[in-house]
Amino acid sequence: MTIQLPNKLGVHALVWVGGWTHEECREAIKNTVEAGYDLIEIPALDPSLIDVEHTKKTLEEFGIKAACSLGLSFDADINNEDLEVVKRGEAKLMAALDVVAGIGGDYLGGVLFSALGKYSHPATKVSWANAAASLKKLAIAAQAKGITIGLEPVNRYESNLINTIDQAVEMIKDIGEPNVKVHIDIYHMNIEEQDLSSPIINNAEHIGYVHIGASHRGGLGTGNVDFDELFGALAKINYKGVITFESFSSAIVHPDLSLALAIWRNLWTENKPMALNARKYMVEHIIRANKL
Amino acid sequence: MTIQLPNKLGVHALVWVGGWTHEECREAIKNTVEAGYDLIEIPALDPSLIDVEHTKKTLEEFGIKAACSLGLSFDADINNEDLEVVKRGEAKLMAALDVVAGIGGDYLGGVLFSALGKYSHPATKVSWANAAASLKKLAIAAQAKGITIGLEPVNRYESNLINTIDQAVEMIKDIGEPNVKVHIDIYHMNIEEQDLSSPIINNAEHIGYVHIGASHRGGLGTGNVDFDELFGALAKINYKGVITFESFSSAIVHPDLSLALAIWRNLWTENKPMALNARKYMVEHIIRANKL
Repeated sequence: MTIQLPNKLGVHALVWVGGWTHEECREAIKNTVEAGYDLIEIPALDPSLIDVEHTKKTLEEFGIKAACSLGLSFDADINNEDLEVVKRGEAKLMAALDVVAGIGGDYLGGVLFSALGKYSHPATKVSWANAAASLKKLAIAAQAKGITIGLEPVNRYESNLINTIDQAVEMIKDIGEPNVKVHIDIYHMNIEEQDLSSPIINNAEHIGYVHIGASHRGGLGTGNVDFDELFGALAKINYKGVITFESFSSAIVHPDLSLALAIWRNLWTENKPMALNARKYMVEHIIRANKL
Repeated sequence: MTIQLPNKLGVHALVWVGGWTHEECREAIKNTVEAGYDLIEIPALDPSLIDVEHTKKTLEEFGIKAACSLGLSFDADINNEDLEVVKRGEAKLMAALDVVAGIGGDYLGGVLFSALGKYSHPATKVSWANAAASLKKLAIAAQAKGITIGLEPVNRYESNLINTIDQAVEMIKDIGEPNVKVHIDIYHMNIEEQDLSSPIINNAEHIGYVHIGASHRGGLGTGNVDFDELFGALAKINYKGVITFESFSSAIVHPDLSLALAIWRNLWTENKPMALNARKYMVEHIIRANKL
């Protein structure tokens, strides 16, 4: 008996590799397919480090798609009052958009609205407005390429601008373009939201992408997230989009991302059984929540 | 009918005031008593800003005790390989110890083992050993004053050294002094631990102080923490120590602490009903967990 799941399941590349050399690209995509996932999410913090042609060919060889995600850096940040800094942030977003188009993808998400890191001050009305204006340009450019833009609310230590789903929807309304969605992440929701279901249900039409991870960012199965509540909310809004598993351990180190995400502890060493188990865990919860 | 609770209930001063002028000191202590709490926790990030004599007199006037807490700063940090930086961190800890003794307190806790903030690199064996050596000196000095030292595991964005209760116990074993305990905090446990009860039960004899807060650091009653699980674990280990409520909103701003803790959002504006409600919530859960 084959059960048709309502969602494509993805896995973040950092489960497999810390960089994106030709060898790492091949290993990550191969492992993704072998673990039964439908999609790989490739971090594009520095879009220039991704060999677009090679990545596209390797994805085609293994027959899967990729999404891209990134967070900006403090020196290239659209959430800033200095227009020179904003301009550098915009350029990075546009470069990432070209990567997504080049590898045949249709999704660019993450902390696109600010630097990924601990700010030393609150955001301002001006920095919010600058971010909205830059994202509007990005969204319009993305429309021409058939790409959806996802804004991922992250916890207070990873951005000062958008920490909740409600704030992301407020930004989407300010941007006013139809291809901008909320990219939810259960790890961040566990820290910032009032509960794990009402923000999803109340903003149903805006949810465009989902990150699943344990509350400690290790493997699925322990931690403090009520996954039945979460998958129940996704079933209730009839969510049909991608659900991507993320996990970070000091066993796999990305030169920028691991430090930005404060990955100090070794939460797993063997990624293959961990990723297989995570997929099984997700499938079981999706089946139960959707009564399949 | 009067129910005798097994725990003294405390409240963090930042619920009331952002600084510690004479007026703020008086307001915070008065509000603490009026809201029914037994103890106030005073942040001592800069011990020199606390007027010890005035604080002691005001505490005596209102008939309550105080605990002190702090996190170190990056330029005065015992979790460092540079012994000059370590020395400055030690000096700050010793100054805070003098404040605790001066106000008639018996507890100094918090992020005593490192800077309170987002590190850009992992801790090292040398920085761990330096922290352990400094804390041993602090603990010995504290013994002479009848003061307990509490190490508070905090989330990965607030320290790179001790994020879990197990790690704190490892540090306590390295220090090897009887007056060093684990200061647990449910907000951080929700992010870093495998669950909310087993780390408490497995390390029962080391638990010396408890911070209670919502998963989003707002008022109690919403959020993603299972307080029945938490209070159940405290009842199971027969915990008789202090339980202190913490909550942070952009409505009350401490010049250093609010930015270090990334308090960007306004989670409440009216502190008095919020603190009253939090106490009620704690009392109800303690009564239920202890079957009083």
